[in-house]
Amino acid sequence: MTLDAVLAKIDENLPQATDRLLDLLRIPSISTDPAFADDCDRAADWLVEDLKTIGFSASKRPTTGHPMVMGHAEGPGTHILFYGHYDVQPVDPLDLWDSPPFEPALEETDKGMVIRGRGASDDKGQLMTFVEACRAWVQVHGVLPVKVSIFFEGEEESGSPSLVPFMRQNAEELGADIALICDTGLFESAVPAITTQLRGMVTEEFSLRGATRDLHSGMYGGLAGNPIHVLSSIIAGLHDETGRITLAGFYDDVPELSDEMRSQWQRLAFDHASYLGDVGLSVPAGEQDRTPLEMIWARPTCEVNGIWGGYTGDGFKTVLPAEAHAKVSFRLVGQQDPDKIHQSFVDYVNARLPADFTAEFAPSRGAMASQMSTKNPAFDAARQALTDEWPRPAAYVGCGGSIPIAGHFKAELGMDAMLIGFGKDDDAIHSPNEKYDMESFHKGTRSWARILAALAK
Amino acid sequence: MTLDAVLAKIDENLPQATDRLLDLLRIPSISTDPAFADDCDRAADWLVEDLKTIGFSASKRPTTGHPMVMGHAEGPGTHILFYGHYDVQPVDPLDLWDSPPFEPALEETDKGMVIRGRGASDDKGQLMTFVEACRAWVQVHGVLPVKVSIFFEGEEESGSPSLVPFMRQNAEELGADIALICDTGLFESAVPAITTQLRGMVTEEFSLRGATRDLHSGMYGGLAGNPIHVLSSIIAGLHDETGRITLAGFYDDVPELSDEMRSQWQRLAFDHASYLGDVGLSVPAGEQDRTPLEMIWARPTCEVNGIWGGYTGDGFKTVLPAEAHAKVSFRLVGQQDPDKIHQSFVDYVNARLPADFTAEFAPSRGAMASQMSTKNPAFDAARQALTDEWPRPAAYVGCGGSIPIAGHFKAELGMDAMLIGFGKDDDAIHSPNEKYDMESFHKGTRSWARILAALAK
Repeated sequence: MTLDAVLAKIDENLPQATDRLLDLLRIPSISTDPAFADDCDRAADWLVEDLKTIGFSASKRPTTGHPMVMGHAEGPGTHILFYGHYDVQPVDPLDLWDSPPFEPALEETDKGMVIRGRGASDDKGQLMTFVEACRAWVQVHGVLPVKVSIFFEGEEESGSPSLVPFMRQNAEELGADIALICDTGLFESAVPAITTQLRGMVTEEFSLRGATRDLHSGMYGGLAGNPIHVLSSIIAGLHDETGRITLAGFYDDVPELSDEMRSQWQRLAFDHASYLGDVGLSVPAGEQDRTPLEMIWARPTCEVNGIWGGYTGDGFKTVLPAEAHAKVSFRLVGQQDPDKIHQSFVDYVNARLPADFTAEFAPSRGAMASQMSTKNPAFDAARQALTDEWPRPAAYVGCGGSIPIAGHFKAELGMDAMLIGFGKDDDAIHSPNEKYDMESFHKGTRSWARILAALAK
Repeated sequence: MTLDAVLAKIDENLPQATDRLLDLLRIPSISTDPAFADDCDRAADWLVEDLKTIGFSASKRPTTGHPMVMGHAEGPGTHILFYGHYDVQPVDPLDLWDSPPFEPALEETDKGMVIRGRGASDDKGQLMTFVEACRAWVQVHGVLPVKVSIFFEGEEESGSPSLVPFMRQNAEELGADIALICDTGLFESAVPAITTQLRGMVTEEFSLRGATRDLHSGMYGGLAGNPIHVLSSIIAGLHDETGRITLAGFYDDVPELSDEMRSQWQRLAFDHASYLGDVGLSVPAGEQDRTPLEMIWARPTCEVNGIWGGYTGDGFKTVLPAEAHAKVSFRLVGQQDPDKIHQSFVDYVNARLPADFTAEFAPSRGAMASQMSTKNPAFDAARQALTDEWPRPAAYVGCGGSIPIAGHFKAELGMDAMLIGFGKDDDAIHSPNEKYDMESFHKGTRSWARILAALAK
């Protein structure tokens, strides 16, 4: 079975493939907000129907949350399991979008054509690169070059509560020789990359309470404690003046970078000035004794993702609020244990509460960091396939994000996972005006066609 | 003209007077939120019509914001100007109200009957005590014992932007021998009080900006600065560990309490344990070397009234936000100058911005603190009238709140002002479940009837 005819078919299919992606992007499948539950369901239905059109036996599989999509297609030899997620991030602040997030459109920019809309890059555009590669293979040869199972999740952006239970209940059906995960990017928007290490995560939401009700700051100001002040002090104390996180034992299970990995990453010649400059920044703000690539790939972090308290509407209300709230997340590396970090955080907060104050913690969610073994020959085969498609040779890289699925494939199903994706740094995932380059969509699809061929050998 | 018949008429009128107040409370005249502009207008109309029924020549007077209400009624001798405000505070958090804030109702509590609803105490219930006192005087005697002008504002809870311009444009019409202001409370919910000093205020709203857009905390966390962290550090640094405010020059114009005032306040035997205990607190959280009464009446404060940034909705979004925001207010005393405090705050924030960060400040609003002279004989006359009505003798007190109108009467119109009100500490003004005791409403009305008689002598 020749690859060239498949690549030509992909080129020919591009307009229709784009229309299909736009269809999928119109469905506002925001998993974190219960108001969009029906839309998540609708996105799953759409994918089931689309997979059926290319010969997959596909079905929507209920969970206690949003449904999974499973699909299977026969093929010779190796059995691969492909993973993507059809849910998307919330869209606020909505007023910073230049066009409605769920009215996707093609847009000519000075860097080329892009597909604009929530989920264009994370992760609907990415998962469709694989679906379109399969479609072209089937259209040209009537069959795929390897046995393919597809597994789409609808809760990736809301902590994947159903993922591990589903994996355990369907371990046999999900079993394959290797997993492919498409939820990452090109290094520096240009170098095709296989991600071999990802940060883990712990999320915390907590509330501080002082008085039993909101107070008038004229009647109580200067006498009663203010939860916003207490919360600010607690947040301010999470980092010391060198950028290190102050939780007790936080760095106990953080490994130093190996010399081999350090030199490999140095060869990547990461242009942190451009990386920061793209978002209007110039100075690395993290740990002062680390390189920028270490900061984002190999060091743990603590970020406040949301804060609120008191009066936040138009105008002014001189309230002394009864409560203040924050959402905090930690990115983990090495062997950092989410439960241990959670407990250290709770202890840290409780130790800093003044008299009369209480703290309440929502259930914490966590996942350990992931480290892939590149000894499986599929890694080098895929790296070569990527190198054949793109102008620059493919590299093994790290990723600052948390894609716990990779760790789950290993832990629950005993499978290695290859993380390959085509996102660019300026895709604005999780932000207003998210986009996916047409180049990513097109060459991404061609990349998967090549990887399928390479894995068939 | 006898007072006793007027007091009897007030007792007789109480049910209808209560119905009138409930009518006024049903109008959601939230001045700070533009969505309620029509309701503010409606509240002004309601008051004009009501004043006309008791013989006032009354009219709604346009401003660039919400309208003023003016009314005049002839009478012998002294000319007094009564001030109140018909606008109310916002009602959020709405879910903490036990009944809808604009569906007021009488409620039997273990402390007696109360009128429940937004504005019941601040300030619709209070201003109606004066209107009902005038009504009873007119019903019994056909005329008031003094010449009365009434001046109701609709922007008190949103910084009174139109107040001083209106005063200047209508100085002649507003001119009187003395002003009466009903927007304060009974000391410790029991002692009738004439407030002789009030704190001033400066309000600040500001935004910090880092990156040009919201970032993914996996892609940028550990490398890019987080505006919530910066904002938290700035807020945390506003007070030192003893509770003092750290702005440069902040205490320059703060006088120490006079020995005479200190001993007078000591005689009040303020029960701060109960005052804090009523709202679930036990330990004074302010400046460590000050008495609780000093903290709230005679010391300046800095309170964050609102904070927001990042993702604050349901679920989790691991965003590294581009912006964070806060509303901060300072209560001023003595000769503290709002403009100087504003500049010191701006300098403080700007000096603490890391590289790549900017701060933007909304226009600041401010008013100096007020200090009344009690030498005008009207003060002692009113104090005696209050002592005649209530079980405990009336006192001169301070007030932690900011009622800039008192200072404006002096500065713009050359008039002394007497601040007399009947609110109680548990009225929950500015908070959910605001109420006004029926005792406050009834004895407040009787108090004004007595004061009008006393001022006629």
